[in-house]
Amino acid sequence: MGQSIFSSFPTVEYKGAESTSDLAYRWYDADRTVLGKPLREHLRFAVAYWHSLAMNGSDPFGAPTIRRPWMDRSDAMQAAQDKADAAFDLFRVLDLPFYTFHDRDITPDGQTLRESITNLHSMSDYLAKKMESSKTRLLWGTANLFSHPRFMSGAATNPDPEVFAYSATTIKHCMDVTKKLGGENYVLWGGREGYETLLNTSLKRELEQMGRMLALVVEYKHKIGFNGQILLEPKPKEPTVHQYDFDTATVFGFLKRFGLESEVKVNLEANHALLAGHTFEHEIATAADLGILGSLDINRGDPLLGWDTDQFPVDLYSMTLAMYHVIQVGGLGRGGMNFDAKVRRQSTEPEDLLHAHIGGVDMCARAFLIAAKIHEEGRLAEIVDARYAGWDLPENKAMLAGKESLEAIAARSEERNINPQPRSGRQEQLENLINRYL
Amino acid sequence: MGQSIFSSFPTVEYKGAESTSDLAYRWYDADRTVLGKPLREHLRFAVAYWHSLAMNGSDPFGAPTIRRPWMDRSDAMQAAQDKADAAFDLFRVLDLPFYTFHDRDITPDGQTLRESITNLHSMSDYLAKKMESSKTRLLWGTANLFSHPRFMSGAATNPDPEVFAYSATTIKHCMDVTKKLGGENYVLWGGREGYETLLNTSLKRELEQMGRMLALVVEYKHKIGFNGQILLEPKPKEPTVHQYDFDTATVFGFLKRFGLESEVKVNLEANHALLAGHTFEHEIATAADLGILGSLDINRGDPLLGWDTDQFPVDLYSMTLAMYHVIQVGGLGRGGMNFDAKVRRQSTEPEDLLHAHIGGVDMCARAFLIAAKIHEEGRLAEIVDARYAGWDLPENKAMLAGKESLEAIAARSEERNINPQPRSGRQEQLENLINRYL
Amino acid sequence: MGQSIFSSFPTVEYKGAESTSDLAYRWYDADRTVLGKPLREHLRFAVAYWHSLAMNGSDPFGAPTIRRPWMDRSDAMQAAQDKADAAFDLFRVLDLPFYTFHDRDITPDGQTLRESITNLHSMSDYLAKKMESSKTRLLWGTANLFSHPRFMSGAATNPDPEVFAYSATTIKHCMDVTKKLGGENYVLWGGREGYETLLNTSLKRELEQMGRMLALVVEYKHKIGFNGQILLEPKPKEPTVHQYDFDTATVFGFLKRFGLESEVKVNLEANHALLAGHTFEHEIATAADLGILGSLDINRGDPLLGWDTDQFPVDLYSMTLAMYHVIQVGGLGRGGMNFDAKVRRQSTEPEDLLHAHIGGVDMCARAFLIAAKIHEEGRLAEIVDARYAGWDLPENKAMLAGKESLEAIAARSEERNINPQPRSGRQEQLENLINRYL
Amino acid sequence: MGQSIFSSFPTVEYKGAESTSDLAYRWYDADRTVLGKPLREHLRFAVAYWHSLAMNGSDPFGAPTIRRPWMDRSDAMQAAQDKADAAFDLFRVLDLPFYTFHDRDITPDGQTLRESITNLHSMSDYLAKKMESSKTRLLWGTANLFSHPRFMSGAATNPDPEVFAYSATTIKHCMDVTKKLGGENYVLWGGREGYETLLNTSLKRELEQMGRMLALVVEYKHKIGFNGQILLEPKPKEPTVHQYDFDTATVFGFLKRFGLESEVKVNLEANHALLAGHTFEHEIATAADLGILGSLDINRGDPLLGWDTDQFPVDLYSMTLAMYHVIQVGGLGRGGMNFDAKVRRQSTEPEDLLHAHIGGVDMCARAFLIAAKIHEEGRLAEIVDARYAGWDLPENKAMLAGKESLEAIAARSEERNINPQPRSGRQEQLENLINRYL
Repeated sequence: MGQSIFSSFPTVEYKGAESTSDLAYRWYDADRTVLGKPLREHLRFAVAYWHSLAMNGSDPFGAPTIRRPWMDRSDAMQAAQDKADAAFDLFRVLDLPFYTFHDRDITPDGQTLRESITNLHSMSDYLAKKMESSKTRLLWGTANLFSHPRFMSGAATNPDPEVFAYSATTIKHCMDVTKKLGGENYVLWGGREGYETLLNTSLKRELEQMGRMLALVVEYKHKIGFNGQILLEPKPKEPTVHQYDFDTATVFGFLKRFGLESEVKVNLEANHALLAGHTFEHEIATAADLGILGSLDINRGDPLLGWDTDQFPVDLYSMTLAMYHVIQVGGLGRGGMNFDAKVRRQSTEPEDLLHAHIGGVDMCARAFLIAAKIHEEGRLAEIVDARYAGWDLPENKAMLAGKESLEAIAARSEERNINPQPRSGRQEQLENLINRYL
Repeated sequence: MGQSIFSSFPTVEYKGAESTSDLAYRWYDADRTVLGKPLREHLRFAVAYWHSLAMNGSDPFGAPTIRRPWMDRSDAMQAAQDKADAAFDLFRVLDLPFYTFHDRDITPDGQTLRESITNLHSMSDYLAKKMESSKTRLLWGTANLFSHPRFMSGAATNPDPEVFAYSATTIKHCMDVTKKLGGENYVLWGGREGYETLLNTSLKRELEQMGRMLALVVEYKHKIGFNGQILLEPKPKEPTVHQYDFDTATVFGFLKRFGLESEVKVNLEANHALLAGHTFEHEIATAADLGILGSLDINRGDPLLGWDTDQFPVDLYSMTLAMYHVIQVGGLGRGGMNFDAKVRRQSTEPEDLLHAHIGGVDMCARAFLIAAKIHEEGRLAEIVDARYAGWDLPENKAMLAGKESLEAIAARSEERNINPQPRSGRQEQLENLINRYL
Repeated sequence: MGQSIFSSFPTVEYKGAESTSDLAYRWYDADRTVLGKPLREHLRFAVAYWHSLAMNGSDPFGAPTIRRPWMDRSDAMQAAQDKADAAFDLFRVLDLPFYTFHDRDITPDGQTLRESITNLHSMSDYLAKKMESSKTRLLWGTANLFSHPRFMSGAATNPDPEVFAYSATTIKHCMDVTKKLGGENYVLWGGREGYETLLNTSLKRELEQMGRMLALVVEYKHKIGFNGQILLEPKPKEPTVHQYDFDTATVFGFLKRFGLESEVKVNLEANHALLAGHTFEHEIATAADLGILGSLDINRGDPLLGWDTDQFPVDLYSMTLAMYHVIQVGGLGRGGMNFDAKVRRQSTEPEDLLHAHIGGVDMCARAFLIAAKIHEEGRLAEIVDARYAGWDLPENKAMLAGKESLEAIAARSEERNINPQPRSGRQEQLENLINRYL
Repeated sequence: MGQSIFSSFPTVEYKGAESTSDLAYRWYDADRTVLGKPLREHLRFAVAYWHSLAMNGSDPFGAPTIRRPWMDRSDAMQAAQDKADAAFDLFRVLDLPFYTFHDRDITPDGQTLRESITNLHSMSDYLAKKMESSKTRLLWGTANLFSHPRFMSGAATNPDPEVFAYSATTIKHCMDVTKKLGGENYVLWGGREGYETLLNTSLKRELEQMGRMLALVVEYKHKIGFNGQILLEPKPKEPTVHQYDFDTATVFGFLKRFGLESEVKVNLEANHALLAGHTFEHEIATAADLGILGSLDINRGDPLLGWDTDQFPVDLYSMTLAMYHVIQVGGLGRGGMNFDAKVRRQSTEPEDLLHAHIGGVDMCARAFLIAAKIHEEGRLAEIVDARYAGWDLPENKAMLAGKESLEAIAARSEERNINPQPRSGRQEQLENLINRYL
């Protein structure tokens, strides 16, 4: 390996909040112990191969603006190796513990299915070698089953069973590769699992196909002894008009329907939450309550725009709320925080990529430190607990535990002629409380 | 009973599409047989007591504009009777088979819980008497557990268990009254079952409370031998920032979680679908696929506005798609089509209420007739079936039936080196096909 | 010219509403006289070169799905000629009176500015020759100043004056070519005239640059004796976060600011109206009221999606309202109705393009015929006029004409102690009235 | 005056960021000099009478939850005085320099126009007396021309000219009262100046009526020597489906059309910007660029909800951007920052109102301090200026100044065969820069 576009950049170091350097971490002190373990282990940051190495700045109205050396090479496999070299050099610069990829990020499509598989294994060997001299490990792998025209009408949910088979084959090998590289999770994002119009769609068939594919994945995971988590990534729409994995609650119902709720969790993305009409913290809290919180894709959307902008996060207030919920539910376990975020189309320099990640890493770290303090001081939790304190009384516990029938509750209430009084929800005071910590 | 504001109007009759009368049905020929039974039995229209009798035209920026005689009476119970007299006179004019109500629509709140219950039973007796001389029956009853300040922080999901008890008591009596009046369904819309801010909310506790309440309702239904359907009504937000019964898929997951999916169905509203980011037909198709399609609230929202406008439907294209899905899944059974729609604030005359319902009834009837024709001719269904025909081949059926493992599918696909080709989804042609029927 | 992908299709003919052919017009009887002239002259349909000839089905998550023969040719100028051959063959099949193009649709970018200009003139000569044997004329031309990376930060509004100069040069030649080909309008859509973030943007400078460019265009138009209309095309966002030509009202203010309101009009698009939070008919009525209605881009968006879907229209109700406003304001003059609409990514066959246009043409024609009837019968206009009749009284006319001061009006009102009473707006009745015509 | 519900609260004092008191200012040190004058004079905070004194917590689905003593008094004028007493007690507690009101906030509607006017003058005298012993002055007054049913179809834009006259009369007296009380601005928010449906609306007539009313107001201002600013408040929708004062750019066009652009400015609200699809800072920057920035309504909306939530601000990042633009354009002059914000429906205690204002005041003050620092250090402005530096070269200035024709620019560009190169917009770096200051 020779020089990469990142070679000239030294590793980004933690220099504290007072640092005036643009290329230093000001909040992400990876070794700092918080809530009993180092920040690094709480946050488990990952760099996304696709956005950082494969994204070229094209949009529906414009051509690529971001040109990297490997994009212009005519030998596709050599280009893939150059890209991998640059990737690991970027990981070195950012000094983050994880990365993530789709098969198509690390290796080009072959002329045939077999060639694609061969390429995939070959490039994964190359990555394995790169990882030997890198501290960066694999948070998760996944298959791109949405870009190629063959997937235009779906992968698992395609009306053509041959596409289902092609997808199954691809997933199998991606799982093999993820296991080989020590990945801690395997993710499925159903980019074309949905519909453009109900006019040509059988919801019934497509959901059954999708359920079957997921069952196959879970069976295979156990068969090969892959001990990572299987994660679905909810998104409500885009590229399709409606995507089946709409949001966390929808995915939960889907998992229950196919009996997979103890086998599969969710990989939640801030921007996808927004597109579904939710806050990120809502999705986190919901997934945790349903027992399916797996991992996070860190980014932000623009609430004034209607598409997935995948921007790096900038807002401390909302990030703090997200981190607070992560802490409240006991952290992410084998999941992590993956920067599923890309620089803007006009941010054409390699250095822009560094600014973006540094800003995102610091935003999360700073928010996490604040959230940890809110958690440790416990005042917010106390106020919430006090609000529900009545439910801890034995008679009310009994009512909730199913020990009283509707008519028994009614009889008791009528007997006492109860007249419950509203009590302030104190929202503004709590909002001030949060801001006090920022 | 004396004169009502509707007394001067004759019963609206079907006069055919060529009629120039503003106060006649042009498409709703109730006795016309379509798909084997009269339109009346397919459509099962209901008038909503609240919008038609209780709505006064106030909005967040303005005072009431719609004044009906009973609104100015000082004796609340007499006002309730006057209102009921007018209601049944309206039902006579519109000649529709059903009506629907909340407890608070038909009777005022009492000074105490007991008085409220007494009032409710008293007024339901009055309604029972009115029904003796009316052809209009009760499609469903429900409890208003969202307007009074005691419910400001939720009913079943209130942090105060006394509100839970108060709500349970109210629901019990509303179920009793619904049964007494021959109601065919009992509906729960969780207008305050949600949150304003996660800061003061325990999702975990509130969802458990909500699950418990629903279980109590189902147990009680069986106990009293109410043989109607229990229906939840999804809505994503408004009045709260987030409502737990977000949409059909969310409700399904909730029902599965609490083991109630075979006991409870959904009452779907067009405007609520829109607020959740769905088309009405999506919600209908999804509920049908999940086996929980119960009943429909007919209205429309305004996609350019972000609140529940509850307008009467005007658009034939989208209504036809909704009706087509209703027909495809076998109709609504004991459910019906309830006009959960109100006249605009500036539509202050009783006659406006007639125009609104006549327009809505005709819109649904016309759309149903078109959808029935599409269904009967079968061309659309044929095209969809043909698209999935490959899945009917034995080898593909087997794959879907779980008879092949992931690695077996992969081995077979690699062996054949498959290369599935994209096929046109023909969306524009199908859109033209629908318009051909309009 | 040899065979094109459209050669096998006969010209689409009007066969009447009862026709069962999928490839016939059922409503667009071009020669039928309505409101004093043939439908053809009212509707002035145009085929958009870019969507119909250059669109390849790629989207932000997927590769091209639509492959046309000329897309794979290595000789770019030969490809451009093949594309033009196919274009005119498509025009023949659709038998529509106009087409529209960007410079980049008809000719490839050259290696240099000069080469691009040479190519443009060369290809425009080719088009001129094609037009000799075609009935299809040019509705408008325009320059693509948004796709190439050089325009990533704007064309006229670029921080780099050299891009302004490059854009000016390109516009000059596009105007020359538009004039040469007999174009009836010249359009400017500011696809990158806006910002991604205010952080790096000088609104003040950019708006001044944009005003200057438009003034240059207007001066040049007069200089070369181009007697077509100059049109701006409003769009609120996408591809940028904020576009300066947000909507009609914004454009009007911009024109007034730079004194160009009598020189420039708007080309309005249905989907852009939706993205700005307006109905299409709102934009039409507003532009007409402000005296700047120029031309229309016919398409539809999806109100549940947040991007420019550019779909062919399917909804008769909303199209009728748009057409009614076009008729009310006296038609489009030298403007027309351009199908700025594309087939879905899965609609990969040439035939899909025909279905799409036939559906769109028929939708507009049918809506126009209905709107013409509403207009001719005049009942809707009568009701509206009656609502404002009070303003036609001399004393009220005087008040509006500025002949009374605020205090004089107040004195008179207090003297009379006026108490105006609300009157029903009759919205539902009017909505029914429209549906009566459909 | 006796006790009010605020009597028990001491005046809120500045205690610094380290204060642990919930009822102290932590950032708003009114006397602190920043950018040459005290914070108090930069921020010019106002308390909104309606939200703080008149709001009762009702919403479209629920009854009032917030009960204040004056709301239950049967003597309306006495209630108005009690309310005023409480208002000035609240101003004392919050120690803010301004307040704002509608006529209907401070005085009840009379039985007749004349009685309403008498009441208004009587209560304004009462307010004048209260102001003698208060430090709080009047930022602006306005007329509520949207709540009463008479305004249901508009005030100035009503189809009934008598409503126009009634509105004109009301405005005249509100202007008189505003002048009498030393108000520094007079605001017009057109809550019903818009339409519910174009079907019953003449845009042309209504906009002319609105233009005339504004001209009357401006003439009257000069006549009585009111030297405050006249301000329009843009809002795109709600309560109507479309409001004519959609956003800043629309208002600018309207003012230009009626020749009032040097007489009238805008009062911008954060939540209204959001509803129009803009950021608050966009509206501020746009108004400043157009020379019509008048005053600010401080609040926030919820981007996941589609109505005007009027919440107190909580987000430091976005508020900092807004304040930065205020500083960049030279401040607000005679305008101020009015808390057009209300506590949530569940925040029922008087103390909630204090928390809300304290949080809002501190949020603005903190953001202003940060923005002042960004402004003073100048790094952001430098980067922006550098981006446009090319335009300061003489040849480019000339091009912008209109000294070159389109063909001259083209000739020069072709001669040089220019090839402008894209340069990074550095968005992420600038976003990090902002966060560095927070």
